[in-house]
Amino acid sequence: MIGLSSYAAVMESLTSCAEEQQPSSFMTNSWSKNQESSGSQRPKCVGGFVLVHAGAGYHSESKAKEYKHVCKRACQRAVDQLRAGALAVEAVTAALVELEDSPFTNAGMGSNLNLSGEIECDASIMDGKSLHFGAVGAIGGIKNPVLVANCLLNEAQKGKLSAGRIPPCFLVGRGAHDWAVSHGIPPCPSEKMATSECCFRNKRKMELAEGMDAGLKQTKKRRQSSENENGSGCLDTVGAVVVDLEGNVAAAVSSGGLAMKHPGRVGQAAHYGCGCWAENACNMNPYSTAVSTSGCGEHLIRTVLARECSAAMQSEDAHQALLEAMQNKFISDSKLLNPYSADSEILILCTFGSVFNLFICLFSVEFLWSHTTESMCVGYMSAQDSKAKTHISRLPPGTVPGQSLAIEGGVCRLKGVVD
Amino acid sequence: MIGLSSYAAVMESLTSCAEEQQPSSFMTNSWSKNQESSGSQRPKCVGGFVLVHAGAGYHSESKAKEYKHVCKRACQRAVDQLRAGALAVEAVTAALVELEDSPFTNAGMGSNLNLSGEIECDASIMDGKSLHFGAVGAIGGIKNPVLVANCLLNEAQKGKLSAGRIPPCFLVGRGAHDWAVSHGIPPCPSEKMATSECCFRNKRKMELAEGMDAGLKQTKKRRQSSENENGSGCLDTVGAVVVDLEGNVAAAVSSGGLAMKHPGRVGQAAHYGCGCWAENACNMNPYSTAVSTSGCGEHLIRTVLARECSAAMQSEDAHQALLEAMQNKFISDSKLLNPYSADSEILILCTFGSVFNLFICLFSVEFLWSHTTESMCVGYMSAQDSKAKTHISRLPPGTVPGQSLAIEGGVCRLKGVVD
Repeated sequence: MIGLSSYAAVMESLTSCAEEQQPSSFMTNSWSKNQESSGSQRPKCVGGFVLVHAGAGYHSESKAKEYKHVCKRACQRAVDQLRAGALAVEAVTAALVELEDSPFTNAGMGSNLNLSGEIECDASIMDGKSLHFGAVGAIGGIKNPVLVANCLLNEAQKGKLSAGRIPPCFLVGRGAHDWAVSHGIPPCPSEKMATSECCFRNKRKMELAEGMDAGLKQTKKRRQSSENENGSGCLDTVGAVVVDLEGNVAAAVSSGGLAMKHPGRVGQAAHYGCGCWAENACNMNPYSTAVSTSGCGEHLIRTVLARECSAAMQSEDAHQALLEAMQNKFISDSKLLNPYSADSEILILCTFGSVFNLFICLFSVEFLWSHTTESMCVGYMSAQDSKAKTHISRLPPGTVPGQSLAIEGGVCRLKGVVD
Repeated sequence: MIGLSSYAAVMESLTSCAEEQQPSSFMTNSWSKNQESSGSQRPKCVGGFVLVHAGAGYHSESKAKEYKHVCKRACQRAVDQLRAGALAVEAVTAALVELEDSPFTNAGMGSNLNLSGEIECDASIMDGKSLHFGAVGAIGGIKNPVLVANCLLNEAQKGKLSAGRIPPCFLVGRGAHDWAVSHGIPPCPSEKMATSECCFRNKRKMELAEGMDAGLKQTKKRRQSSENENGSGCLDTVGAVVVDLEGNVAAAVSSGGLAMKHPGRVGQAAHYGCGCWAENACNMNPYSTAVSTSGCGEHLIRTVLARECSAAMQSEDAHQALLEAMQNKFISDSKLLNPYSADSEILILCTFGSVFNLFICLFSVEFLWSHTTESMCVGYMSAQDSKAKTHISRLPPGTVPGQSLAIEGGVCRLKGVVD
């Protein structure tokens, strides 16, 4: 039975760990490119920055090293792209590929198995410059679903198809797989994707499920214990947000979905406005924002949380805005979350805004993460850093996951000039 | 090439054709039910009302009779359910089944064929009382996709699955088909679903597409001519909104998607907040609203239009609010619709709010439809009517589809009492 009790949240005191990094070096090549491409009078960001997450849930101490390591590698991949002059959407794709390739994350290789013992993935990507979006749902036999989402986005930017047909932004199942292969993305045999790590996780979950269904209260204790031991309490959807040398933002998310889901189930990672959101600054929005979420898909779909948080970030105080959005649009939105609220383990999100300071001519990239789950693992790196920083954020002791939240983040200054 | 020109809209003078119906008879049985189920101090609606649409696009005079006829039957099916005491969500499902069963609409039986010559449908439903949502995407071999969406919604209301798993709200492809069959919804052979009507439409479109790709300018003229002759210029997504005897609202939408779409393509009809939206009045919202959209999926996804319009409807002046939402959130939202804006044929939507007048103790159901396409076909009926009214709304002569809009609607008064 599902509890229908009220969803009163415990507002946590905030843990803020602002990081301030050195101004970046001036890069003339990016500026000439800016001037050609936009002709805007706005100053542009010099540098670039990436923030990645390896999922919300519970990250055991024993697995922390591996999660941090994959976040580091993902940051490095994105920064390598940024340094080579890639746009945000390509850099964010590179970060996601690295996250998907890890057998520890629930995305791409080694994803959760569904009820039929198969891997079906969701992924989406959004380009803050064009506002184009690409997504795949319940796709099997493709090692990197984010590459398909990125390819859909790129194809859509080329305009209409033959006979005036509008290009798709969202493909699912077998059709998505075939489209990917026909666009040069190699298929991957299912047996190769189902790594020993995920098969072990799946077997444990099946056993625990059988125990739970037998009504053994003792099982719950065993479940928690074994999840802690094996680090399998994580939802593990992965994501990243990037700002590039031109100041464009992009966001992406990728997920293998819930363990033992029904085949064909599509979660928030493929839903427009739910899994990720990216929007460059424009007349209406003073800040560029990019958001990537992780957690239980059905909750995130109902709250359209990525888009909600992006809108909230247009406030002067991003930290307070994120706190309020998480509190009012997610934890306390009993209207939308009822009847799952009572015992849900929920989400994280990452966001940033690029901010121009008129006087010192610096750009501030403000990056934040927030979670209502026990922990989340993040990594971040600017194009000027020699290596990425990683961190496992945890709810304060004694707080209740799903009813409490933590927000952390920092600010990175990047040198800018006026065109 | 896609035009990137501005998307300036021509605001049309509004055609308002308010229909005022007789107050309904007092129905004691519904009131005792209300009092039992909610215990609310709010007055309740007596009666029930349905509004259906058979798609936006171009409805030729020769086919008008058939479209009107199916709308009439759909209204009757919903009202039959309402009179038997069914809730809004069941009544709206009944209306959709009738619309899907028509070979003239692009939903269920006789849907558009995809590039592989197969039928893959999208459908979704939302219950304004529970705010639960059920959707299927790219589902094949099921005669009535709305029944699967409704079943997903019902199953979700029952709470969690075995082993604490969250029930899915969105299933796609083969998985959705298998889930449907395992829940008692019979499969339908593909050859039966591909009616002679849709095969003829598909053949014509294939020929026209080949002609267009050959770069023959003459083809465009022929295309328009043949579409007018055959009524095949319609997008034909169908939908309905219902208010039931208890004052609950529900909305649903169903679509066969774009002709010659890629297999696996999912459009707005399956997207949360895009294809339909329903929300009972609550502390935050003075009005109950239900919205169903039709049109080009990619546009409607990017604008999340059903939810946007529902939010706008909370205004005191629903007519003006809808006009502004259509204008600002849809036609003029070049930010989101760019690069498709120049020559897109877009949408309709239906909406209503149930309004309580404190002094005369009557409920007003305000129903509106709006479209930027050449025409749309609607039908509506209250539980007190002996038969449904139908109407084909057309843009005024000389206006440009995609840049102009029409809004029409009416008000239906239903007698109410205070608990």
